[in-house]
Amino acid sequence: MSKRVFNFSAGPAGLPYDVLKEAQEEFLDYNNIGASIVEISHRSKDFMAIIEGAQSKIKSLLNLGENYHVLFLQGVASSQFYMVPMNFVGKDNSVDYIDTGAWTKKAIKEAKLFTNVNVVASSSDKNYNYIPKNISLNSNSKYTYLCSNNTIFGTQYKEFPKVDNYLVGDFSSDVLSMKRDLSDFGIIFAGAQKNLGPAGVAIVIIRNDILKDLNENIPSMLSYKTHIDKSSMFNTPPVFPIYIINKVLDWIEKSGGVEAVEKNNIQKANLIYNQIDNNDIYTGVAEKDDRSNMNITFNLTTPELESKFIEEALKEDLYAIKGHRSVGGIRASVYNAMPIEGCQKLSDFMSRFAKNN
Amino acid sequence: MSKRVFNFSAGPAGLPYDVLKEAQEEFLDYNNIGASIVEISHRSKDFMAIIEGAQSKIKSLLNLGENYHVLFLQGVASSQFYMVPMNFVGKDNSVDYIDTGAWTKKAIKEAKLFTNVNVVASSSDKNYNYIPKNISLNSNSKYTYLCSNNTIFGTQYKEFPKVDNYLVGDFSSDVLSMKRDLSDFGIIFAGAQKNLGPAGVAIVIIRNDILKDLNENIPSMLSYKTHIDKSSMFNTPPVFPIYIINKVLDWIEKSGGVEAVEKNNIQKANLIYNQIDNNDIYTGVAEKDDRSNMNITFNLTTPELESKFIEEALKEDLYAIKGHRSVGGIRASVYNAMPIEGCQKLSDFMSRFAKNN
Repeated sequence: MSKRVFNFSAGPAGLPYDVLKEAQEEFLDYNNIGASIVEISHRSKDFMAIIEGAQSKIKSLLNLGENYHVLFLQGVASSQFYMVPMNFVGKDNSVDYIDTGAWTKKAIKEAKLFTNVNVVASSSDKNYNYIPKNISLNSNSKYTYLCSNNTIFGTQYKEFPKVDNYLVGDFSSDVLSMKRDLSDFGIIFAGAQKNLGPAGVAIVIIRNDILKDLNENIPSMLSYKTHIDKSSMFNTPPVFPIYIINKVLDWIEKSGGVEAVEKNNIQKANLIYNQIDNNDIYTGVAEKDDRSNMNITFNLTTPELESKFIEEALKEDLYAIKGHRSVGGIRASVYNAMPIEGCQKLSDFMSRFAKNN
Repeated sequence: MSKRVFNFSAGPAGLPYDVLKEAQEEFLDYNNIGASIVEISHRSKDFMAIIEGAQSKIKSLLNLGENYHVLFLQGVASSQFYMVPMNFVGKDNSVDYIDTGAWTKKAIKEAKLFTNVNVVASSSDKNYNYIPKNISLNSNSKYTYLCSNNTIFGTQYKEFPKVDNYLVGDFSSDVLSMKRDLSDFGIIFAGAQKNLGPAGVAIVIIRNDILKDLNENIPSMLSYKTHIDKSSMFNTPPVFPIYIINKVLDWIEKSGGVEAVEKNNIQKANLIYNQIDNNDIYTGVAEKDDRSNMNITFNLTTPELESKFIEEALKEDLYAIKGHRSVGGIRASVYNAMPIEGCQKLSDFMSRFAKNN
């Protein structure tokens, strides 16, 4: 039996143990081919079954109809920051962006290379510890962009703004973690390395009706149309991450689907938030209404106490709980794959630590 | 003991068995962390040691000095087709391209979006069965582009043209397979999935002196400068392929370096070329002087006989030897990781098959 910590890493993050175990077992010989999954053609029937299976499971788990395309693209989520405007808008258009932290700031920077960007709301005034609400949007904007969950600050949209155009959403850190009404989204994307699988691929979901007036004369690899036409097989896709994602999707299905996963995630997060709220030694970073169920951020009374907390936690196999440098303090990332036992153990540790310090 | 075929796949291709075995053994618990290599932060000291180790081994194995940058980028080699012109040239420049098949054609198509492309030579007149020689190049071109080894047709440069500017080389299918004088190259790139590791990453090597006048106002993720400044850590890199590449580089070093690997590759290829040359039933696709030591392409006298050949070969665990649809016939890809036993077995099979048919 290998050693196994409770891994609170913000990403690349922990994956379901059963998935890893199965991947390990078949790593040298996939499906009795006599070769590893990483050694076979992406056009082989074995891999085609994997990628097509993953595409259809994503649609079914997210309750999306036949009018959506599911792509697996390289270049992680960061590549969507420029691919979205590069494909959909030009200098004559404008777009609305809601700024909720480091990742939307990057998206805004890239979009400005292609079009006119209205930053319609920002929570930068309070170092991004909340989600802006009651935003007035521009009716002539082509789309409205937001980031569903903000890993660094620990905030998460509970409700999305209503729009006249369509929403573009970066769901990198909370995809498939809770039931969502996604019908207003034209584009949904997510890097794999938090809730889905190993780093090296992003899932990009595009609603068919927004494909009417795509920009042409852009590099083939950067055109969504290329990848939709070839069903993500224009180039050699990143086989291994897609293979693991497919197993993670199976694991979600076996766990009871997104609803069951959400229920579990709320229970997990509450174990930790309760400690924050019931002990004066801890102060949550995010405003209560906007708290993330994926990334739980808090401070202790002094930086010295925070270092001590991290050190003692590691001794109990509570791994990678240091906060991001721009916020400091503690961050416990409790994505889908974190077992409830990990949250219980952290919660117990927090209670003990509060009493002793 | 798992089943193991001899895998002649053109890519994703076979990897050294020892590398896969080691990866399997430590897959659930890397370096006694208590987490898988795919579950830990790319900024952890464990992963930093891997990526930095791989960068320095690539430099040392290719005999490159300190004036080169080694990057690991997503988007496979196909992304370099547009990133090279996007970063280095504009509408006022011109560039020279040597067309040796499907992959250079794609590169030419993408370059035309950014600059004036002179196709200075092409072997399309003979369905790319040779490498053009004695090419007259344009002295005012910014760079000269070529593809070192052409997987589909089975041709390979034995010598590179002399240039006044610098060479840009796609080495996706023969990187680290033979000793090469690379001093005229400003850019060397290679997708991983043939000679290096699993699909999902490209190595891109850039000589420092060509970085003088890079284009600005391009998306951050597409700028070589971004990735050089952040040493391939601007975004979350594809951890798993880089991890395997690092092990493959160790394996090359242990095998005696590129010189030993080249010697072995020549011996391996000759086992198969000798059968082609000594049996009337086989006809090589590539002209003799330009034959690739990585991809060996040949035809049999009829398509029916080719099907029979493929079928009987598979029964002997000689896997994935069907030629590319644009050439037909047989293609045996014998990258670095193919053991000599595989080539010997294919050679013996070819000899027997020729006698019996």
